[in-house]
Amino acid sequence: MQTFQHPRQMREHLDALRHQGHTIALVPTMGALHEGHLQLVDEAARHGDTVLVSIFVNPTQFGPNEDFSRYPRDLESDRAKLQQRGAHLIFAPTPELMYPEGAATRVCVQHLTAHLCGPLRPGHFDGVATVVTQLFHIAGPCTAIFGQKDFQQLAVIRRLVRDLHMPVHIVAHPTVRDSDGLALSSRNAYLSTDERQRALCIPAALQQVHDAFHSGIRTPARLTQCATSHIAPRVDAVDYISLVCPDTLAPLRDDIPQHHSALLAVAVRIGTTRLIDNILLSTAPSPVFPRSAQGTKPPRPTSPC
Amino acid sequence: MQTFQHPRQMREHLDALRHQGHTIALVPTMGALHEGHLQLVDEAARHGDTVLVSIFVNPTQFGPNEDFSRYPRDLESDRAKLQQRGAHLIFAPTPELMYPEGAATRVCVQHLTAHLCGPLRPGHFDGVATVVTQLFHIAGPCTAIFGQKDFQQLAVIRRLVRDLHMPVHIVAHPTVRDSDGLALSSRNAYLSTDERQRALCIPAALQQVHDAFHSGIRTPARLTQCATSHIAPRVDAVDYISLVCPDTLAPLRDDIPQHHSALLAVAVRIGTTRLIDNILLSTAPSPVFPRSAQGTKPPRPTSPC
Repeated sequence: MQTFQHPRQMREHLDALRHQGHTIALVPTMGALHEGHLQLVDEAARHGDTVLVSIFVNPTQFGPNEDFSRYPRDLESDRAKLQQRGAHLIFAPTPELMYPEGAATRVCVQHLTAHLCGPLRPGHFDGVATVVTQLFHIAGPCTAIFGQKDFQQLAVIRRLVRDLHMPVHIVAHPTVRDSDGLALSSRNAYLSTDERQRALCIPAALQQVHDAFHSGIRTPARLTQCATSHIAPRVDAVDYISLVCPDTLAPLRDDIPQHHSALLAVAVRIGTTRLIDNILLSTAPSPVFPRSAQGTKPPRPTSPC
Repeated sequence: MQTFQHPRQMREHLDALRHQGHTIALVPTMGALHEGHLQLVDEAARHGDTVLVSIFVNPTQFGPNEDFSRYPRDLESDRAKLQQRGAHLIFAPTPELMYPEGAATRVCVQHLTAHLCGPLRPGHFDGVATVVTQLFHIAGPCTAIFGQKDFQQLAVIRRLVRDLHMPVHIVAHPTVRDSDGLALSSRNAYLSTDERQRALCIPAALQQVHDAFHSGIRTPARLTQCATSHIAPRVDAVDYISLVCPDTLAPLRDDIPQHHSALLAVAVRIGTTRLIDNILLSTAPSPVFPRSAQGTKPPRPTSPC
């Protein structure tokens, strides 16, 4: 398993593989890999002959008061996990290599970023759209795998690829959860034992909303209130608990129509840690609540809505 | 010579050619082709096995009060000229195909666009950067040819390609001039006989500035004044006459240092027509004043600076 640092060398290596007939599947990450990332690697192996994992803590997607400097970084540990999981190549550039001197280009996706995390993290999605565009240019035509936990990021990247006619196929992978139900995230490492215990209110509330939806409740205010009543007392701040259209991410005001789906998205702070999670509410027959890493279900909330 | 309208079909055709070992050279245009464009086609043939010309009047690079609706369009005439010149493929999409429903993505290049035409045409270079990014994704890895008459556009595109790690090689081609010295432009078609006669003050002034620079004048105010005194009395409005750094496009305040170059850039309006032109002032041994279509030199101004 080879590691590349220079964008040009990475691209040349991939071009040579493509010339031999290989297809490429890319898993963009910021490192600090957990089982959620590794399931993306498994998914990638189903879509490409060569599985490429990028590891880059992208400075332009962090705000000035966010956790760029303390974001967990451990390339050696990440490399060992990827080796074991059968990834073929790692691309781990430096900020100086990704953003050359005088860099002045930004890719912006409007509308979708006016909702949910967008207004709370100014510039975040421009940073994401820019680095993902860079990575797609370096990786070349490929399939790229993203997790559904970052639902808004996934929506932004799908839009970006469509609007700019990028030769990239996007695959979404369901959120992976720990045995206690908490969505896997590199930021979970920041949580104390008590904070982590409190964080379990999030998957419990999502399960509760899921059950309420499937019991026939379609009113946005009732579904949102169901989540809020479980979450708000247990966290230090609620950034948002919103029921939105999965396509536009705009808040839903009216009852969810028959055969339409909705996304309940949550962002909270527990201590100094910001956590996000979401659940897609759909009457489609596919299983709705995402799988857990260990195959167990998230805990039931202690009281119904 | 085949014409494609659909981005996906265009890309699939080019992918098949690449698979056979062909290299692609792209000439992006807005149609209304003149000898300047056709010399870009000749240049393209030196860089790629397949010469692809895109013809697309891009709505997003026109301001609300600009000439989008009256911009000259004549695909049949363009096709005949390209056929004669030996181009291989035309890509002529519609705005609806380039910008799918709900399109929300913009590519922005900062800093370079804060100068010259940038402040006068808000959003113009975002539109250019966005459509050029789209075209590069559709064309795939290629060489792309741009004229130096649109010097700021060329600088923006070079920056864009570098910043986003695009697998595209940019080639600049010198400005092509008519026998009377006027830089070729599709917008010259708007000029009346009298307006065209007046427009000749632009190449005459550029030649005058060139001569002044090579006689040893290095002071920005003197070089700029030299151009202004020739141009201002003959046009209806001066948008700018600026001496700038060719790399940053920022105005030069101090004398041009030894072995440094400078760009004198001009934008004026004559009647309802906006014309731009420029000259690179350099002590490098290469010929500085761009070639003319017919090989003749621009007219001498009637009086020295």
